[in-house]
Amino acid sequence: MKNIMEMSDAELSALHQTLQAEYRRYQDRKLKLDLSRGKPAGAQLDLNNALLEKMETYRTPGGLDTRNYGLLEGIPELRALFAELLNIPVERIVLGGNSSLNLMYDAIARCMLFGTCGHTPWCKLNEVKFLCPAPGYDRHFAVTEDMGIGMIPVTMTPTGPDMDQVEKLVAEDPSIKGIWCVPLYSNPQGICYSAETVDRLGAMKCAAPDFRIFWDNAYGVHHLYREHQLKDIFGACEAGGNPDRPFYFFSTSKITFPGAGVAMVAASPANILDIRKRMSVQTIGHDKVNQLRTLQFLGSAEGVRAHMRNLAAALRPKFDMVLEILERELGGTGLAGWTRPDGGYFVALDTMDHCARETVRLAQDAGVKFTGAGATFPYKKDPNDRNLRIAPSFPTLEELKPAMEIFCLSVKLAGVEKILAGR
Amino acid sequence: MKNIMEMSDAELSALHQTLQAEYRRYQDRKLKLDLSRGKPAGAQLDLNNALLEKMETYRTPGGLDTRNYGLLEGIPELRALFAELLNIPVERIVLGGNSSLNLMYDAIARCMLFGTCGHTPWCKLNEVKFLCPAPGYDRHFAVTEDMGIGMIPVTMTPTGPDMDQVEKLVAEDPSIKGIWCVPLYSNPQGICYSAETVDRLGAMKCAAPDFRIFWDNAYGVHHLYREHQLKDIFGACEAGGNPDRPFYFFSTSKITFPGAGVAMVAASPANILDIRKRMSVQTIGHDKVNQLRTLQFLGSAEGVRAHMRNLAAALRPKFDMVLEILERELGGTGLAGWTRPDGGYFVALDTMDHCARETVRLAQDAGVKFTGAGATFPYKKDPNDRNLRIAPSFPTLEELKPAMEIFCLSVKLAGVEKILAGR
Repeated sequence: MKNIMEMSDAELSALHQTLQAEYRRYQDRKLKLDLSRGKPAGAQLDLNNALLEKMETYRTPGGLDTRNYGLLEGIPELRALFAELLNIPVERIVLGGNSSLNLMYDAIARCMLFGTCGHTPWCKLNEVKFLCPAPGYDRHFAVTEDMGIGMIPVTMTPTGPDMDQVEKLVAEDPSIKGIWCVPLYSNPQGICYSAETVDRLGAMKCAAPDFRIFWDNAYGVHHLYREHQLKDIFGACEAGGNPDRPFYFFSTSKITFPGAGVAMVAASPANILDIRKRMSVQTIGHDKVNQLRTLQFLGSAEGVRAHMRNLAAALRPKFDMVLEILERELGGTGLAGWTRPDGGYFVALDTMDHCARETVRLAQDAGVKFTGAGATFPYKKDPNDRNLRIAPSFPTLEELKPAMEIFCLSVKLAGVEKILAGR
Repeated sequence: MKNIMEMSDAELSALHQTLQAEYRRYQDRKLKLDLSRGKPAGAQLDLNNALLEKMETYRTPGGLDTRNYGLLEGIPELRALFAELLNIPVERIVLGGNSSLNLMYDAIARCMLFGTCGHTPWCKLNEVKFLCPAPGYDRHFAVTEDMGIGMIPVTMTPTGPDMDQVEKLVAEDPSIKGIWCVPLYSNPQGICYSAETVDRLGAMKCAAPDFRIFWDNAYGVHHLYREHQLKDIFGACEAGGNPDRPFYFFSTSKITFPGAGVAMVAASPANILDIRKRMSVQTIGHDKVNQLRTLQFLGSAEGVRAHMRNLAAALRPKFDMVLEILERELGGTGLAGWTRPDGGYFVALDTMDHCARETVRLAQDAGVKFTGAGATFPYKKDPNDRNLRIAPSFPTLEELKPAMEIFCLSVKLAGVEKILAGR
């Protein structure tokens, strides 16, 4: 298909009719497919089924009985594994329950209720705002919105958030208390923060003394095509004179079973003191049996890397297919642009302006569910109504093919109709 | 030993010397025992070891794949089991992670940050207070204290909190927003709330329209000697015209593995709507694999009851021994009074006034750790310095015997020294 902009009115009308006919044929197939969430497929989860086997011992290698109460910070051997895997000093690591999102939520709730490192609780302030690099992760935005924290979108660039914007905003406005970051294979664009971005985040001058970076390294070991390295955020913040700036989150949700994994928060000694103090009131401890089960399954940091290569091998054909179909159906048409991530769980696509919502509606009416248009922006408001998130992980290849064809068809139809309406 | 009050000075001095000699003999044994926390013993945990076996399926009886994200409220079959076991409509039940304490903490955090059922967030008010029946559970008090909620102690009676006090306080003071209740086999006294107490809690007039009962039924199925029935708090609150008053908590922490069980919150439809809305921002869902594992192990409500009879059989000899030694060593001495609970995890003992702290110190110096004196009161302040909590579950019978003997000896020594100092 040639570039849409070069088509005559007649060509465009003819194309529109062809597309409509094709769309109706898909509708007649009454498919019911879902590309909306970053959920692993059953076949991928099967690679973790050793987690369901008998546990040979309930004792940690160090001899601790995981069945009983206690050990707020989690079992030492799994903390050590995360420490090696992510290059974080082990004493900075506290394990949580099954959800890093919950740890982030709790971290913000603590800032709201108690403040951090002796600073005023945010709930006592007239206004609290967060920077939200966008497109970004909808559940991050939901947490800040629910807490009544104002959200300021920041443009994403191929090396991370636009640091000129970020530096200007945080320097001027003391009510800006934090920033959401998914620094490796970002959700949804698969962008990896450059070393310069990390350094600037660590060094920038913030009007708020209790500014916090929410560093959600959800895809820290989730390479697909090429292994990107992430610069150490703790080191960057220390070098910048801001050692207490980052809260670092990680989990095994997409390493073992989503929703039955082990989450982690890491932070500076001062922050960890705060976190442990509050957490010791909140719970007697997290699920250590599952921490041990996870440790027994993963074995070591190298075990995680090997396991991730297996998972990547299961996931890669789906990304291959998504990218092939996008290129084949939309390449050179001028109707869409998209990212080619080297890891993570998503491909982000921009339709023509003001076509994303209609694209999702068309796909939905032909039986394929996508994340709602706008979801990747604060308040679900994509100013250009163009960004969409494709999550290829859950369907089988057999399901993914028609789903992506319907998606591309929907992008085309929405785009062509937009142009026709404008001519 | 005859009643201490009837002893002459000479008898008392002689007794003091005998006790001191006995105490030194125990000190020489250099024991290291712990009766401080309500932790099950290893042998009791072994009764749950089937939880460590291979899971034959990761699918719920209804066919759901527990390995993946989703199902915020938990798997339906375990919700149904709790519903039958506790006589709560299933639609009022939301499962949590491994910790009911965490669910309570989150419930209070939500009240603080967002308010309940449309009422003002508590963090926006000048003052928030809770009624704290005391002696009570130290971790409840720690949560309220951490949140900056003022605590008002309420006298415990053999049928629950002194309801005359409670009714008067809540009617007068709109800043009193809640009450902590452990309604069956209370921690630490093993008191069971009477039907009248439950009815009065449901019907009482509260100045605060958003008053909440934190109903921590931690020992709801933990009978030891006799099965007490607990009146339905939801029914009592509905009959009183206060359907949204109770938050009901329960967990399998002392049914399966403490710290690796499944917790539950139940509430009225309006509250559950609130809870689910906020929880859906906080997490994608709790650990459903562990929920299924727990369901497979327990089987049914009747399965839980049968399992609890086995656990009680393991625990009862320890309570027998504690009560025997207390009676033998302290009965009729006038040095202490204690409860004879029909279930739960604790025996509460009152020393003579102003002797609890010294008793704990003496026991500690002879190698036996007890919960700190005062811990069972808000702000750790026992006005009479007399209440102590005995947790017999963790040590073996062989350890429990010397531990209790040292404890009784410490009670005697502290008491005798107090009297001698006063004569």
